[in-house]
Amino acid sequence: MVEMRKPIPVADAVRLVMEHAMPLGTEMIDLEQVYGRVLAEPIIAKHDVPPFDRSPYDGFAIRSLDSAGAAGDNRVSLTVIGEIGAGYVGDKPIGEKEAYRIMTGAQIPENADAVVMLEQAIEMDGGFTLRKPFEAGENISYKGEDAKEGELLIETGSLVHPGTIALLATFGYAQVKVAKRPVAGILSTGTELLEVEDELVPGKIRNSNGPMIKGQLNRMGIAYRSYGMAADDLDACTSIVEQAIAESDFLITTGGVSVGDYDHLPAIYERLGAEVLFNKVAMRPGSVTTVAVLGNKLLFGLSGNPSACFTGFELFTRPAILAMMGGTAPFMPRMTAKLGEDFTKPNPFTRFIRATWTFTEAGIEAVPAGFNKSNAVSSIARGNCLIVLPSGTRGYGMGDEIDILLLGSEQGVSEWTL
Amino acid sequence: MVEMRKPIPVADAVRLVMEHAMPLGTEMIDLEQVYGRVLAEPIIAKHDVPPFDRSPYDGFAIRSLDSAGAAGDNRVSLTVIGEIGAGYVGDKPIGEKEAYRIMTGAQIPENADAVVMLEQAIEMDGGFTLRKPFEAGENISYKGEDAKEGELLIETGSLVHPGTIALLATFGYAQVKVAKRPVAGILSTGTELLEVEDELVPGKIRNSNGPMIKGQLNRMGIAYRSYGMAADDLDACTSIVEQAIAESDFLITTGGVSVGDYDHLPAIYERLGAEVLFNKVAMRPGSVTTVAVLGNKLLFGLSGNPSACFTGFELFTRPAILAMMGGTAPFMPRMTAKLGEDFTKPNPFTRFIRATWTFTEAGIEAVPAGFNKSNAVSSIARGNCLIVLPSGTRGYGMGDEIDILLLGSEQGVSEWTL
Repeated sequence: MVEMRKPIPVADAVRLVMEHAMPLGTEMIDLEQVYGRVLAEPIIAKHDVPPFDRSPYDGFAIRSLDSAGAAGDNRVSLTVIGEIGAGYVGDKPIGEKEAYRIMTGAQIPENADAVVMLEQAIEMDGGFTLRKPFEAGENISYKGEDAKEGELLIETGSLVHPGTIALLATFGYAQVKVAKRPVAGILSTGTELLEVEDELVPGKIRNSNGPMIKGQLNRMGIAYRSYGMAADDLDACTSIVEQAIAESDFLITTGGVSVGDYDHLPAIYERLGAEVLFNKVAMRPGSVTTVAVLGNKLLFGLSGNPSACFTGFELFTRPAILAMMGGTAPFMPRMTAKLGEDFTKPNPFTRFIRATWTFTEAGIEAVPAGFNKSNAVSSIARGNCLIVLPSGTRGYGMGDEIDILLLGSEQGVSEWTL
Repeated sequence: MVEMRKPIPVADAVRLVMEHAMPLGTEMIDLEQVYGRVLAEPIIAKHDVPPFDRSPYDGFAIRSLDSAGAAGDNRVSLTVIGEIGAGYVGDKPIGEKEAYRIMTGAQIPENADAVVMLEQAIEMDGGFTLRKPFEAGENISYKGEDAKEGELLIETGSLVHPGTIALLATFGYAQVKVAKRPVAGILSTGTELLEVEDELVPGKIRNSNGPMIKGQLNRMGIAYRSYGMAADDLDACTSIVEQAIAESDFLITTGGVSVGDYDHLPAIYERLGAEVLFNKVAMRPGSVTTVAVLGNKLLFGLSGNPSACFTGFELFTRPAILAMMGGTAPFMPRMTAKLGEDFTKPNPFTRFIRATWTFTEAGIEAVPAGFNKSNAVSSIARGNCLIVLPSGTRGYGMGDEIDILLLGSEQGVSEWTL
């Protein structure tokens, strides 16, 4: 008998998964380790920025009143009493018609209230002349003008990228409170699977999903325990799955989720008492994608078909991992593009098509990576986006506007909108 | 005296850098290490895909001639002589009115030339009946139909992402020939700099560029040697720079490239006999960005201003690194967007503005991260793109179409087009 499963819409499946993706707590780590993590504390300005009145230019720090009346035919002379490089402070206040030579980023000396840029002065022995007056405050970056002490600058839940690190460094966050990262368990199932280094034998193929998922986890900086490959044996497979769940924060299996005689994942979920969130999604490829929950751990039963496995990971597993990591923008960015080729198949289910988007003078164009039979195999290794064709549509022509989701994008979005 | 420098257009600066970014040779690495590297060999189909005629469905493998004449009122009965799970092969050829029960991915047994999907058969004890005839070849994936042995699937110079790994695994690439990655040297210069863990003292600020650049390198998977911070002392700085160049494949310095009294990088380049490719770029921020070459090593003299430093890295250093890694698509992807806020400043030089692009029903909108003074400091930690406003333009209004470059995108493009 063929088991009948009721397909649920992709958006519902995404929502169900995300409802069960729970943060794992927080930890303190060194600033050098923080790239790609998610902030578990906001970044607060721990002091004013700039922390002191400073010069934005190389030039001369003066009292503006000494420049009063300066003009091309009425040059004012000032005497240089010292030099302040960035990182130094002037050792005495300036007096009448005195100035410091000052460098970009250096602290304004006492009594000075303006900076003359080098190119605004005519240098001469021991000093310089001016031919225009300066106002109080001219060319000075005032203490606190960019940020006031105590200001909230970046929110909890933000992904740390290089610019975030610059801000953390500015305020002395040598240690940063971040959300813990989950550790994945990975198990590839299927009696047909060989290791990558094995010679082909009749009826068998090499395991490509396991290495691919490790790559998808590497891309996110997520550590994993690999449980290798399991043949389609219910008892043996159950015990490996049980061990993997115990040792990991979530489990990814590939294969074994269809309705065939050797598709044991449904039986394993039942044996272990896992709650199946869904076992059929109205999508192609990957309609058999199954997600279950045991305790607080998500069990991702991805399809054994490589394209479906890839898509299932990016649609469900990736945002769940980002949510476990505390992230608030876990979904792939979406945009629209012109379809670069006809796609005549009907789409009873939402269809995800690996594609390459490019910028053209006519706008963004997305060309499927594998429409031609000749590149069906290589399509998984091509492309930078997924074309999304809604269920219930018939066919699309070249030039039609379609939605795409960007793959391999560091910054995500907070809502699933398809 | 102020040294006069001649600014060159950004596109010329990019071209000059890329002309000097040379690949560093190749190495063999394990498949598990290959994410984010660049292929130094093409991926060739080492065997046909599928490697054997196989069933795309769970069902029954039959001889099509046995189904001739089958109809709703003329059911044809077949006997099941065995079962072939994925990974197994049938042990005997099928004869007249015989069939194998067969699973998705399993090899078609001898004499069979069609597959009946489970839902197309009515099962009964020891066999099943059909109510429609099947054609030869129906529901069979033929050996080699997706790829023929010897076919070139992915080109040398491609960045390895998770889908590439799947393809490498399929063809047994347990070891992969990739381009070597350069090792960076990093040195932050400036007497004003404190370590991240230091307390602020008058006139000084913490070093944020060093940690930021480490983050930018981490994002690319590039290892580095850090030479810490150097005060603005010409002799000391020269000897650190010399050591760093000797020990690294390229050098990134921050600060010291302006025309101030303590900006020693120009003098250091001269002392070491480095050829300066440019020392002024018609861009904001970062017009002082300087790039020099010594032997075959690029020396990136980035600005000490954090936004300029960030932008200089992404515009020049990142594509050069990708080229050194053998990559053929080293530039940030470009697209257009509607400006989300007025920007009234004139742009004598090409202006790069940190911004956030979002998808809206009206198209892509890009909002600058730091136009308001209140988020000037945090702008470096926000945003997923750079708005590019061409030199010689005056001001832009909300809704104007502008170019953006995507930050943190895994897949790049092969041409700089701005």
